[in-house]
Amino acid sequence: MDLKKDSWVISLDLPRPSLSNNIGDADRIIQALKNKIKTSYVDIDYDLLKEIPQLIRSYDYNILCTFFKYRDKCILIDIKNNSNLNHNIIGLAVDLGTTRIVMRLIDLTNGNKINELTFDNPQIQIGPDILQRIHYAEKNDGLKELNQLLIQEINNQITRLCSISSISNKDIYCIAIAGNTAMTHFLMGLDPHWIIREPYIPVINNFGLIKASKLGIIANPRSQVLIFPNIGSYFGGDLISGILYSNIYNSKETSILVDVGTNAEVVLGNKDWMIACAGAAGPALESGVSEIGITACPGAIEKIQFNSDINDFEFFTIDNQKPVGICGSGFIDLAAALFISGMIDIRGKFVPEKCNNRLKYIDEILHFIVVKNENSSISSDLSISQADLESLIRSKAAMYTILRTITNSVGISFSDLSNFYIAGTFGNYINPKSAITIGMIPDLPLDKYKPLGNSSLEGASLVLSSISKTQNIEKIRDSITYMELNVNQEFMNRFSAAKFIPHTDKNLFPTVFNNNRHY
Amino acid sequence: MDLKKDSWVISLDLPRPSLSNNIGDADRIIQALKNKIKTSYVDIDYDLLKEIPQLIRSYDYNILCTFFKYRDKCILIDIKNNSNLNHNIIGLAVDLGTTRIVMRLIDLTNGNKINELTFDNPQIQIGPDILQRIHYAEKNDGLKELNQLLIQEINNQITRLCSISSISNKDIYCIAIAGNTAMTHFLMGLDPHWIIREPYIPVINNFGLIKASKLGIIANPRSQVLIFPNIGSYFGGDLISGILYSNIYNSKETSILVDVGTNAEVVLGNKDWMIACAGAAGPALESGVSEIGITACPGAIEKIQFNSDINDFEFFTIDNQKPVGICGSGFIDLAAALFISGMIDIRGKFVPEKCNNRLKYIDEILHFIVVKNENSSISSDLSISQADLESLIRSKAAMYTILRTITNSVGISFSDLSNFYIAGTFGNYINPKSAITIGMIPDLPLDKYKPLGNSSLEGASLVLSSISKTQNIEKIRDSITYMELNVNQEFMNRFSAAKFIPHTDKNLFPTVFNNNRHY
Repeated sequence: MDLKKDSWVISLDLPRPSLSNNIGDADRIIQALKNKIKTSYVDIDYDLLKEIPQLIRSYDYNILCTFFKYRDKCILIDIKNNSNLNHNIIGLAVDLGTTRIVMRLIDLTNGNKINELTFDNPQIQIGPDILQRIHYAEKNDGLKELNQLLIQEINNQITRLCSISSISNKDIYCIAIAGNTAMTHFLMGLDPHWIIREPYIPVINNFGLIKASKLGIIANPRSQVLIFPNIGSYFGGDLISGILYSNIYNSKETSILVDVGTNAEVVLGNKDWMIACAGAAGPALESGVSEIGITACPGAIEKIQFNSDINDFEFFTIDNQKPVGICGSGFIDLAAALFISGMIDIRGKFVPEKCNNRLKYIDEILHFIVVKNENSSISSDLSISQADLESLIRSKAAMYTILRTITNSVGISFSDLSNFYIAGTFGNYINPKSAITIGMIPDLPLDKYKPLGNSSLEGASLVLSSISKTQNIEKIRDSITYMELNVNQEFMNRFSAAKFIPHTDKNLFPTVFNNNRHY
Repeated sequence: MDLKKDSWVISLDLPRPSLSNNIGDADRIIQALKNKIKTSYVDIDYDLLKEIPQLIRSYDYNILCTFFKYRDKCILIDIKNNSNLNHNIIGLAVDLGTTRIVMRLIDLTNGNKINELTFDNPQIQIGPDILQRIHYAEKNDGLKELNQLLIQEINNQITRLCSISSISNKDIYCIAIAGNTAMTHFLMGLDPHWIIREPYIPVINNFGLIKASKLGIIANPRSQVLIFPNIGSYFGGDLISGILYSNIYNSKETSILVDVGTNAEVVLGNKDWMIACAGAAGPALESGVSEIGITACPGAIEKIQFNSDINDFEFFTIDNQKPVGICGSGFIDLAAALFISGMIDIRGKFVPEKCNNRLKYIDEILHFIVVKNENSSISSDLSISQADLESLIRSKAAMYTILRTITNSVGISFSDLSNFYIAGTFGNYINPKSAITIGMIPDLPLDKYKPLGNSSLEGASLVLSSISKTQNIEKIRDSITYMELNVNQEFMNRFSAAKFIPHTDKNLFPTVFNNNRHY
């Protein structure tokens, strides 16, 4: 078989046994494997061990080994006949999101992507956010229920994914899962109680490999799961995975990586050092914050701008359907457009004389109509309230303050950054121009902003296609200094200054006031 | 608790969690454990992990850790409250013999022996010797049956041993098992087929730790089993365990260790080098070889000598019961007595004129009556045949030849040996004078002969009471050169010369011809 170098599948043409070379069958394999992959210790799956004598003889000692290694734990999972060229040896990469879970099949022999699918985290039915789920887990059997919901859905979706890919669950030998700390706890059935209570202690930071069957995951009965380690309750394996994918840890250039969800997680650094922090970014960038705020789905407005010629908004929805709401990136666009057109002021307040007839009271609260009833697919106008805008401004101010705080802490300025990576689906859709306009992110040349896509999934995929990349997980984990965001007076002062659009200090955002460049 | 140093139970007063020390619960323990025992990696039992958050808080972070380590695999098995002084934390040492199994309970906190018991290997009902069992294992479900017989009986006896020791099976956290290669395969349910076929390949040499529950052993559900490694099909973990106990590997003096069973296993060396070999010693020293040959049991003649004054044999039986047979050590005594008294000649042939009326034909085969009908507890005379003697002579010749071959191979003479260890129950009962007289072992000063007792059990016990001793297992395994006993012309010449009593070369056995010294 034509195998990619640095993969978890390697071919071994073993020395044949003789009176002068009569080490055990398993030791024969392990010795050859150790020589080839430079590891000090290889464990062998006990169920595999029982089959080894029959297998290696029927393969005439010319075998394909599938193994998995993380830290000092290296496990031989499977052997196959190397003379037969037709084997499915598959890996499964999982981005275990709070809201969505994405799974991707990778061919372990060559690192090629086979297929992927996305599905809702079934725990949403217990609670859309982590906090609700953790409280639920504290009730009788709540944790077990959350765990089983998750595992069952994962199993259903693995079966579906395998089915559309014409493989069997049994063809999956290595699984890499990246998720936030709470999701990882739910996956493993570990008590998340202390994650949300000061001083915020996870049950475990760095678990490493575990047999899929122990977790109840239906794949090859001997398959092993690598669960990405976390650095703390608020800095999960999904971000470690993202760092792995971003390559920040390996680059001379200093870069920043931002992952925005309920929390903003930020990593700053280069190959010599990395510093990370996480802070509540506020709910404005997620669903449920305004009547029109939704997660990305067909009909969600993902881009929007004000066209003064027609005195109306031009927008793009996902799948070009009639708008049903507005998602995070669209909301940022909207705020930027409102600011540029003067419909909101520097404090984010509606300016009635500029808003024409778009303002109305709903339940005594002032709303701004974005899309009229007749153009939306819901039974009313799509509108945002003053409160929605304030919520967004708090979020953007938090984000900018976190970015200032982390760069200040190591004495660098934004202009020292070579890359500004934005992870997550948010990163794919966000328009950096809009985000700069509202003062959410620094006023850097646009080409420094690089969406990473689903960096958590990509990092997990890397693990399945590269032994050496996997070894870097530990390096990343160990080299990150985690900075507690102490909300001190200095932080609060920065935060207050950032609660204006774009900022109290206009010099920080020169291009916002130079329309020619951005618009 | 007052803990022995170097034990598998250590106390850790963990740093309390705080905002500036918020690593995970499990990582907190592992970090402290790693610092204390100097290991690079600690794995944690997954079932234990689930309980850790609740446990460490209820113990206020002051804990007793029970762990087990072999090679690069270190596993945290249990944590207990260090403020409570009353814990049963027990280890189980097992000598997994082909015929007998011995189990001993050890207090892991202080290394003290608690209790032990011996029972027959239940596989005897399938076949008394390993060869028969291996053939049986090749039939449908034969291996499974042999494995289950063994595991069930081990479980019954563990329960019995725990019961008489007022502990529970659940108090057993670490288990160390030493057995020959075939028995270890039966224990693990591994196919022994190739062990007995050239080039004699075991399924595995060095398995290391495995969870007791995977083997079906009923102890604490998280307990771990260390299975002593083998060096090959004919050099098992029982001997590695014996070497560990003998301390040969750690001594400046050159010593030899002999373990006699169906095979004679021999190790020669010191702290700088060790060489080992194993060879068929013949069946004469085990049961079933002569009508009166039995394993040590009540009524077995274990010592015998000829008293010319009364013209009869004086003998000692186990438990002072009427003789039912003669065991290995008694048989050697008998042959020595027959030779000294002139009743057999240098070839081992009966000398009729010296045997008085003790010779008779049974089924046309010449027999020598050792104990008359009326003095034995069987319904006939206890007698040995010419063939029995020849069998013994082949065995003793094989033993002596192996000893000559192994010492010659490294260019040392018998007189260079500081210690001549004889392992096994055989070693406890054998009279070195008799063994020298028949030329089975070299003519060394008697004080060099040291019985080791059940060195396999003692080595397994050492493992349970000492981390550092356990680390030496790998050192022993790696430093032994295994010498294949090629039965070449030189070996056959030596063997032929050794088939006389004591030897064709009388100069090798000066004391045998100086009755004053030995008799």
